[in-house]
Amino acid sequence: MKKTKQIEQNAKTVNKYLNSKLKGNPKKLYDAAGHLIVNGGKRLRPYMVIRSCQILKGKVSNAMPAASAVEMVHNFSLVHDDIMDNDEMRHGVPTVHKKFGMPIAILAGDVLFSKAFQVITDSKLSASATTQLVSRLSKACVDICEGQLLDVKMAEEKKIPSQAEYISMIGKKTAALFDVSCAMGAICATNKPIDISNLSSFGRNLGIAFQITDDLIGVMGDPKITKKPVGNDLREGKKSLPILMAIKLAKGNDKKIILKAFGNSKISRKDLNKSVEVIRSLGIEQNVRKQALKYAEKAEKSLAKYSGPAKTELISLLDFVVKRSV
Amino acid sequence: MKKTKQIEQNAKTVNKYLNSKLKGNPKKLYDAAGHLIVNGGKRLRPYMVIRSCQILKGKVSNAMPAASAVEMVHNFSLVHDDIMDNDEMRHGVPTVHKKFGMPIAILAGDVLFSKAFQVITDSKLSASATTQLVSRLSKACVDICEGQLLDVKMAEEKKIPSQAEYISMIGKKTAALFDVSCAMGAICATNKPIDISNLSSFGRNLGIAFQITDDLIGVMGDPKITKKPVGNDLREGKKSLPILMAIKLAKGNDKKIILKAFGNSKISRKDLNKSVEVIRSLGIEQNVRKQALKYAEKAEKSLAKYSGPAKTELISLLDFVVKRSV
Repeated sequence: MKKTKQIEQNAKTVNKYLNSKLKGNPKKLYDAAGHLIVNGGKRLRPYMVIRSCQILKGKVSNAMPAASAVEMVHNFSLVHDDIMDNDEMRHGVPTVHKKFGMPIAILAGDVLFSKAFQVITDSKLSASATTQLVSRLSKACVDICEGQLLDVKMAEEKKIPSQAEYISMIGKKTAALFDVSCAMGAICATNKPIDISNLSSFGRNLGIAFQITDDLIGVMGDPKITKKPVGNDLREGKKSLPILMAIKLAKGNDKKIILKAFGNSKISRKDLNKSVEVIRSLGIEQNVRKQALKYAEKAEKSLAKYSGPAKTELISLLDFVVKRSV
Repeated sequence: MKKTKQIEQNAKTVNKYLNSKLKGNPKKLYDAAGHLIVNGGKRLRPYMVIRSCQILKGKVSNAMPAASAVEMVHNFSLVHDDIMDNDEMRHGVPTVHKKFGMPIAILAGDVLFSKAFQVITDSKLSASATTQLVSRLSKACVDICEGQLLDVKMAEEKKIPSQAEYISMIGKKTAALFDVSCAMGAICATNKPIDISNLSSFGRNLGIAFQITDDLIGVMGDPKITKKPVGNDLREGKKSLPILMAIKLAKGNDKKIILKAFGNSKISRKDLNKSVEVIRSLGIEQNVRKQALKYAEKAEKSLAKYSGPAKTELISLLDFVVKRSV
């Protein structure tokens, strides 16, 4: 896919910048902070910062501090999430707390967070633009924390959430950082509120479409690509959009089959496959894809008045995000 | 003590401001974030922000966002430290992770951190002053993370650190936040680099004097006040200044007695008391107090050119910090 090459090229530039900022003493702290970063990742959020700056005729170099800040915040949240969920692997490597121990992992997350704000103030933008960046980024961080706890609460409660509750949760947990990535990119190029708001809206809607698609992959994704068994999220009892849609829609025996698999870590592979088949037969995939497309269309509309190569790339990123195969 | 009343009065104002900022949904997240704050604390750091602003003729209201930000950062580091050390009690109440569970405690720390930067950008200061505040605070947060890991490393290693290594560690772990508290207070009043640098130096030296005195209390403090047995830090094997001085200075049988207690959780009360007596007989208390006084004098010198009630209060805080009884 052509898009992937563009993203890869961008990732290299961002990685170089990130590595130069994630150095210090004690070395172990920075090794832990950089662990997930050096082991992969597409740098989608920095890509969005940079293209959002370019679509408004801003210079890439002006967007680099903000681009690396959002990646640091993203990684901070991954490191702490992995501790909370006690996950052992991410991107095919041990999680930070598995490799470095829990105390260092907490600190690694904290130092990523601190550095994110430090790099922003190191930028050459006006003080007023810098203040706006900090204000938006800190607000997004608050949203991420709130969204994360909403997610934990949703998982703990017996109640199946409504679609609106689910969208509100991922709006904070996931989309807030996509939103702020594009808004920050815009701020690096302009001080016009309408442009900042357009890019912010693009990012938010793309973020929701991204998470919805991710959730679909979590249930129906090809095990060869996801490296997890088909139906993994169902077995883990995740209350993601396809699952809550399926539970709501299914009747009689279908519902029984789905609920038997839901949150049942001991279910057989055969029964798990069967419940995924039921979900498929209910037309959940089309339904969820329709939802993702709805947000993707909103995102596209936000960029209606712009043109040029950066727009083309943002739109093609949007396609990439929602059309990822399951 | 007269000083205490001033600090108490200030704490009430700061608490009110803090409470108004630490609200949101889900409520549990903010209950966890505010748990240590509502259960005590002297708000020394906000006090320093406010008085540092006043000594330079700034308005208290201008310093309130920065004052609450440093308290949030202080609490964020307490919450995460308690998880790392697996401590069960603080200020006489259960730690956040004991009361709310580890995942919520991690998030509570993270949201305190995020809110700290958010309140700063909410202030009515100029964009240039705000950028300076963010730059200094984020740098201090990086220092705190580095200092925390240096502390963990120092504790793990067999080697007894030198006095210089110890001072460098507490410079980051503790004094960085005192430093930035005073510097931020100054920035809320003025943009003159010399004044900001004077207050920064006052805070740093006070912070070191504070930590050294704290460490003395950790070894020789009155159990009725510290709520811990005499010699507690010795038994826990903490490499604090009085302990590393004592190990260096002691000879023969004295050294044996001290090393028997050092890091020995099973030592009898009698043997622990005996080793504290040996440390006392070596003149460690006077020696450590002399060190604390040295930093206190440096701190006082930084304020030489100022006068007025805020100066009197900062100096009397300095006295309070270094003369606390053990």
